[in-house]
Amino acid sequence: MMNRLADLIRRKNAPVVVGLDPQLSFIPDRILRPAYMERGDALGACALALMIFNKEIIDAVYDLVPAVKLQSAMYEMFGVSGIDAYRDTISYAHGKGLIVMADVKRGDIGSTSEAYAKAHLGSVDAGGHVRYPFDADIATVNPYLGTDGIQPFLDVCRAEGKGIFVLVKTSNPSGKEFQDLICEGRPLYEHVAERMAALGESVREGEYSLLGAVTGATYPEEGRRLRELMPHQMLLVPGYGAQGATGRDLRAFFKEDGTGAIINSSRGIIAAWQKEAFNPEHHDDAGACARLAVQAMIGDLRKALD
Amino acid sequence: MMNRLADLIRRKNAPVVVGLDPQLSFIPDRILRPAYMERGDALGACALALMIFNKEIIDAVYDLVPAVKLQSAMYEMFGVSGIDAYRDTISYAHGKGLIVMADVKRGDIGSTSEAYAKAHLGSVDAGGHVRYPFDADIATVNPYLGTDGIQPFLDVCRAEGKGIFVLVKTSNPSGKEFQDLICEGRPLYEHVAERMAALGESVREGEYSLLGAVTGATYPEEGRRLRELMPHQMLLVPGYGAQGATGRDLRAFFKEDGTGAIINSSRGIIAAWQKEAFNPEHHDDAGACARLAVQAMIGDLRKALD
Repeated sequence: MMNRLADLIRRKNAPVVVGLDPQLSFIPDRILRPAYMERGDALGACALALMIFNKEIIDAVYDLVPAVKLQSAMYEMFGVSGIDAYRDTISYAHGKGLIVMADVKRGDIGSTSEAYAKAHLGSVDAGGHVRYPFDADIATVNPYLGTDGIQPFLDVCRAEGKGIFVLVKTSNPSGKEFQDLICEGRPLYEHVAERMAALGESVREGEYSLLGAVTGATYPEEGRRLRELMPHQMLLVPGYGAQGATGRDLRAFFKEDGTGAIINSSRGIIAAWQKEAFNPEHHDDAGACARLAVQAMIGDLRKALD
Repeated sequence: MMNRLADLIRRKNAPVVVGLDPQLSFIPDRILRPAYMERGDALGACALALMIFNKEIIDAVYDLVPAVKLQSAMYEMFGVSGIDAYRDTISYAHGKGLIVMADVKRGDIGSTSEAYAKAHLGSVDAGGHVRYPFDADIATVNPYLGTDGIQPFLDVCRAEGKGIFVLVKTSNPSGKEFQDLICEGRPLYEHVAERMAALGESVREGEYSLLGAVTGATYPEEGRRLRELMPHQMLLVPGYGAQGATGRDLRAFFKEDGTGAIINSSRGIIAAWQKEAFNPEHHDDAGACARLAVQAMIGDLRKALD
């Protein structure tokens, strides 16, 4: 899966993943109002609006980017109906040839991680019938419980040709609270990075391991260090746009040849229609503005990588 | 909520939470077969069987224990239908007067954690209608992303009178991999414990903070140390039964007066009907055996706490 992702990034010349993390406030009234009219249940109406909005965004950008990423929280917020929209969005994105990342940040003890892995990436035996409950391609995983919480994901990845990104370093303000604690001479996140690089060897297929890493970093030196510690990891890098980073800041996460990382932007793209820069006329064509924002982001990254 | 939990523990004299983490292999055929007959969709049939099984267990034990805990992975495994069973189980347990813990181990950056907190503990504004998507009472939270990933849960806890258990130390074999790394002179988990104790002060209501901790420990000294570092935290302790610990091993997690902790057992109770000790006649009354197992566990803990 990670080699397939690397291929698609190369073919589209766009190390960009579009975060489908819709909030109701990002969704135009022309979608919300009919959804509220059509569905009697409030959560179902919101979920329907999410789904229609996601389709519009996907239709507008699928030819430009290799992947989309769904933040599961934004769907769980709308209960069972929200999860329905989550699953349907994954399936719709697959129909457009996109790789789908499930940003679920799950992680538990072994047998429970196995259930999460089967749920989000793999299949279950449902009374003799094989079923893929959510069938995303790549999931994000939390490392706090150590290797035996991650191994079941790797087993599913190997069996199904899927992948994971393990949280190594996050770019939120408190990320450093524990991740930067100096443990035996080095920050905790370096220990995690090293352990993941070693663990990932068992599921390496050529250039990339099926185990990649989430690396948000505040300083370029950190990015370089992480890149060095995890030579066979594809890196998923959050923080572009809304969180402040630009293409230049992110150069350090890529290899010398400009490969090996994919940058996420969520609201910077899906809510671009609410920004003067992409929509000086204040219309509500969210898809068209998302396309402009993706093109601008790709341009910015290409410049930084040249 | 944590004071309410402490009260219920006292009234029932049972520091026990029953883990509703059903696997299909724990469910008797007399439930599975009709479920497969009734539902055309395989995942829906499994979810229906889960729900019927959970009701049987709840009916059999609700008068003995203060709380049940649902492991979300076991429901996500069955896709949207599984999540439906998850929500319905929460609601059924509420109807029986139980406190419901959502073992979701979520954790993300601020705005996303807010969505998780609203989803699992709080309410959302769904087009002008207030809705509680899952409405559990207490959720488990992963600390790897630091304070700003936890604060939104605390805000919801304060507003809604709910609680969280933050993972401090887990008892799985690899738990120590990162959690026991020595950071600035002490293991990482002690840093997490101390930070959580401080953070929990802002949501303390009398004896207990709305922020509690998950503390699985391998050695009693660790338990004592954790208890000491978090004087106002209710501790959720996994590992009883199937994971090997007995009442005596767990004494260290309780305060001198025998309060302040609640012990989880999952398969030891819900799959007790498959064990010789609770079912020498090999019948399939899962509820009756669960009740025996709960009574034995309560007896064991009372003895250890006396």
